Amino acid sequence: MPRLILVRHGQSQWNLENRFTGWWDVDVTEKGAAEALAAGALLKEKGLLPTLAFTSVQTRAIKTLHYVLEAAGRLWIPETKDWRLNERHYGGLTGLDKAETAAKHGEDQVKIWRRSFDTPPPPLDKGSEFDLSGDPRYAGIDVPATESLKDTIARVLPFYEAAIAPALKAGETVIVAAHGNSLRALVKHLSGISDAEITGLEIPTGQPIVYELDDSLVAVDRYYLSER
Amino acid sequence: MPRLILVRHGQSQWNLENRFTGWWDVDVTEKGAAEALAAGALLKEKGLLPTLAFTSVQTRAIKTLHYVLEAAGRLWIPETKDWRLNERHYGGLTGLDKAETAAKHGEDQVKIWRRSFDTPPPPLDKGSEFDLSGDPRYAGIDVPATESLKDTIARVLPFYEAAIAPALKAGETVIVAAHGNSLRALVKHLSGISDAEITGLEIPTGQPIVYELDDSLVAVDRYYLSER
Repeated sequence: MPRLILVRHGQSQWNLENRFTGWWDVDVTEKGAAEALAAGALLKEKGLLPTLAFTSVQTRAIKTLHYVLEAAGRLWIPETKDWRLNERHYGGLTGLDKAETAAKHGEDQVKIWRRSFDTPPPPLDKGSEFDLSGDPRYAGIDVPATESLKDTIARVLPFYEAAIAPALKAGETVIVAAHGNSLRALVKHLSGISDAEITGLEIPTGQPIVYELDDSLVAVDRYYLSER
Repeated sequence: MPRLILVRHGQSQWNLENRFTGWWDVDVTEKGAAEALAAGALLKEKGLLPTLAFTSVQTRAIKTLHYVLEAAGRLWIPETKDWRLNERHYGGLTGLDKAETAAKHGEDQVKIWRRSFDTPPPPLDKGSEFDLSGDPRYAGIDVPATESLKDTIARVLPFYEAAIAPALKAGETVIVAAHGNSLRALVKHLSGISDAEITGLEIPTGQPIVYELDDSLVAVDRYYLSER
């Protein structure tokens, strides 16, 4: 039976500071590293051992993957890093903390951006310190200036279909270490969650979510590994 | 101009204890981690930034790669792990320290095994605690019971030709984080070192060795990055 393990990266420095991060490359904190190590130890304890790994090109997800795999005794499995598993791009909100965002745009507007499925935040200013279009990791990629959750899903799912689904069908136990919104894309797809509901679904950091799938990759069961 | 960067893993626990390690999976020490971080910082300082990475399936090499890439700001580049970059398999010597080996086999015999190009140590005993033939990371692979340096080269070079050379020809700056003997195989090939001489060539830990290659992958220059 194909199994898919989803792990949201452990706490990052900007999670801690409550700042919009998106594509900005922020490291995990010590707490975040500990969360990831605990997730890996849990995989080992439960005997749920991944055979193939995917992550984004963002440090906090890659390091989370490495901590998880090391603690699970699986650092040697193949891993693929792809920008399509990146966090949602928060556009002009990138770098702002909660108070700054509310002061700049008003709390009501922030709620709309947070809860809306298809309304992106304002685009990142050209020349912003957070502009990543010249970053070599995105060479050849049209770096978005902002994304709605819908936009994020529109890049995550094709990658799932092209790279992850074939591996699952081949019987691999796949782990994906990624971000709140790229994982929402996968959960929405696999659990059939509506556009309206998915924006409110919180994915906890460092908690492995397990999907058991049938041969057509329809979800038979979904659970937090810590609860089994 | 294609460039190939070779990095031998930082000090491992068994380097420290002076024990034959081979395929046994031993972690890097704190000193080994620091060596790898320094190697990555040097790559960054010199502006020699890898675009593609290869390593073995052994923890000490994989972690070395990750430390190097993180310190170089390149954790996001694609990486391939392959058993053919593993350390030479030391057969029945695995786990023995210098004194134990000399007591068991005599110093003269140990010198022969260390210096010989094609004489392997005695095979690992079936059922030895160091037998890895049941390790899932080697599923589908005929785990050797022992290897000479010649045997090691005979698996490293086909992997180089199949996976690394095409990437170099495509213009990638390739980093290989591996082991004393798998790196000897590459240095022997690229620098045209004789069978007799290669066994005495020491590759220092955590010191990036750079090959500048022409379009046919003939070495134009080889140097320690720390000396440029």
